[in-house]
Amino acid sequence: MSTEGTELAEIINGKAFSANLRAQIAAEVAGLPYQPGLAVVLVGDDPASKVYVANKAKQTVEVGMASFEHKLPAETTQEDLLALVRRLNADPKVHGILVQLPLPKHLNADEVIAAISPDKDVDGLTVVNAGRLAAGLPGLVPCTPLGCILLLEDRLPDMTGLNAVVVGRSNLVGKPIAQLLLQKNCTVTMAHSRTKDLPALCRTADILVAAVGQPEMVKGDWIKPGATVIDVGINRVPGAVEGKTKLVGDVAYQEAAAVAGLITPVPGGVGPMTIACLLRNTLTAAKRLEGR
Amino acid sequence: MSTEGTELAEIINGKAFSANLRAQIAAEVAGLPYQPGLAVVLVGDDPASKVYVANKAKQTVEVGMASFEHKLPAETTQEDLLALVRRLNADPKVHGILVQLPLPKHLNADEVIAAISPDKDVDGLTVVNAGRLAAGLPGLVPCTPLGCILLLEDRLPDMTGLNAVVVGRSNLVGKPIAQLLLQKNCTVTMAHSRTKDLPALCRTADILVAAVGQPEMVKGDWIKPGATVIDVGINRVPGAVEGKTKLVGDVAYQEAAAVAGLITPVPGGVGPMTIACLLRNTLTAAKRLEGR
Ligand SMILES: NC(=O)c1ccc[n+]([C@@H]2O[C@H](COP(=O)([O-])OP(=O)(O)OC[C@H]3O[C@@H](n4cnc5c(N)ncnc54)[C@H](OP(=O)(O)O)[C@@H]3O)[C@@H](O)[C@H]2O)c1
Ligand SMILES: NC(=O)c1ccc[n+]([C@@H]2O[C@H](COP(=O)([O-])OP(=O)(O)OC[C@H]3O[C@@H](n4cnc5c(N)ncnc54)[C@H](OP(=O)(O)O)[C@@H]3O)[C@@H](O)[C@H]2O)c1
Repeated sequence: MSTEGTELAEIINGKAFSANLRAQIAAEVAGLPYQPGLAVVLVGDDPASKVYVANKAKQTVEVGMASFEHKLPAETTQEDLLALVRRLNADPKVHGILVQLPLPKHLNADEVIAAISPDKDVDGLTVVNAGRLAAGLPGLVPCTPLGCILLLEDRLPDMTGLNAVVVGRSNLVGKPIAQLLLQKNCTVTMAHSRTKDLPALCRTADILVAAVGQPEMVKGDWIKPGATVIDVGINRVPGAVEGKTKLVGDVAYQEAAAVAGLITPVPGGVGPMTIACLLRNTLTAAKRLEGR
Repeated sequence: MSTEGTELAEIINGKAFSANLRAQIAAEVAGLPYQPGLAVVLVGDDPASKVYVANKAKQTVEVGMASFEHKLPAETTQEDLLALVRRLNADPKVHGILVQLPLPKHLNADEVIAAISPDKDVDGLTVVNAGRLAAGLPGLVPCTPLGCILLLEDRLPDMTGLNAVVVGRSNLVGKPIAQLLLQKNCTVTMAHSRTKDLPALCRTADILVAAVGQPEMVKGDWIKPGATVIDVGINRVPGAVEGKTKLVGDVAYQEAAAVAGLITPVPGGVGPMTIACLLRNTLTAAKRLEGR
């Protein structure tokens, strides 16, 4: 179908929202009697990881927090990495600890993550924080899911009774989003690669979250008219110009925007929320740790 | 509608299944080079709790395990109770620890449960075990949800792609069942008191789990013909004879059995699975602890 000129959905501008969130965090940090600190651990020279870490450090400093960067050589041993995590756990200046993934292959990431104090686990990756989320207890929620729910809360202050369908069930993205939507009193369906008749299921959704990793899989006619669509996907695909690539989400944006009521674009939707939520988690962790 | 003589569903006999499960556990215990041990802590004189604890102890001994009963007076302090839990955590003869709930009001149950070693938490109540379940890691799953999934596995060896609707989202029952059904590759919907048009939602379910605590709430015409219905509810209501009570589930059994393909009765369905699964969890915990 031709969709030119038919874009009806309001765009959820994650870039503007996250800038605003960072400004709020900065204002709150400025009023604290202590400085929240975020430690980022980077092992090896993965170029993408280096860019992310530099970006995180920059934004951390911009909101007035302390940024502690620990860059370790690729050949770091498991013991040395664990010892660093334990030092950071014990360091009162450090309120958040993030170990940049992936780690070099000889290291055991599960063991390293399990060593992070749950109260400083600002990526929300530990089993304890997964359990707190499942049990509805205060904890630290993974950043991308938190970003999704903040965007939704802003536009849909009362989600009670809405049908939410989450496509994708990863521990990092899909499952935590489902838990957060359940806390908001949505009726939540968890869908995945074994789901039958996914298009029909998606058409029942008042809130549709796509966290699949399949470029533009969710089509316009999968969407209930007026629904809110949150596209978590970040997929690099060949662009219009040969040799160039572009980013697309898990949702066929043009088609979807012609049907949805609210939609996040890619880029500029969920993506920019992730680092802002990392800073928010660091602030949350600092307030809890200092409040004791 | 009159349903007399129209019962079509096959009955899932939880009483027979659990007897069989206990026999399997007994056979496995008999072949172990050590004796699994279950410690049950009972504080105070609640008559219902006393009956449960006696029943658990009896069945523990019957499968060849050691049963350690710790009966404490109602005025036990939090410190003394925590000290007992820590002793049991450290005791190599004890592989499972169960603190009978509810505790007397002056005691903090959350803190007591949090003190139980997650590897001995055979009730699956700790945050760590909730997190392991959410993350799909090996852990100890709450007994009633485990019972439901064992009954389902037996009848539906492949649940891939089935639509499962779980009505009820408590931490103890509804949420863990949803996680287990997701692990079985069902498409899982979590419903609750804020769900809109629950009857229509239930009619989409190939597997319908009711864990609500509302006597006979789920009606026959909420059920998709041929569906599998798991009724977790245990509700005591006035019986036919004045002054007498009877147990009913969350499903209107007669009506539902006329439509469903498979159904658990109340009593004799999910109920008897709970203690059998406690013993199974104790065996699981013992094998893991001794295997280290
Ligand atoms: N915005 C951000 O900051 C951010 C952060 C993290 C991730 N992401 C993006 O979000 C997407 C998902 O990430 P992830 O880490 O959750 O990915 P993942 O671990 O690969 O999980 C993908 C999930 O999608 C399901 N799936 C795959 N193909 C499917 C299909 N054809 N139909 C239905 N379901 C399907 C999988 O089902 P099974 O479980 O059945 O295999 C799985 O549950 C990716 O594009 C990733 O780049 C973005
Ligand atoms: N077989 C066993 O061994 C066993 C073990 C444990 C429990 N049970 C039984 O299982 C049942 C549930 O136990 P529980 O501990 O999970 O109970 P619970 O903690 O009271 O939770 C009840 C759940 O049902 C939902 N609910 C209540 N009324 C509803 C309605 N009208 N429509 C839709 N949903 C409704 C509630 O929704 P909200 O979250 O929105 O309030 C809540 O999530 C009880 O009958 C209990 O006796 C049996």
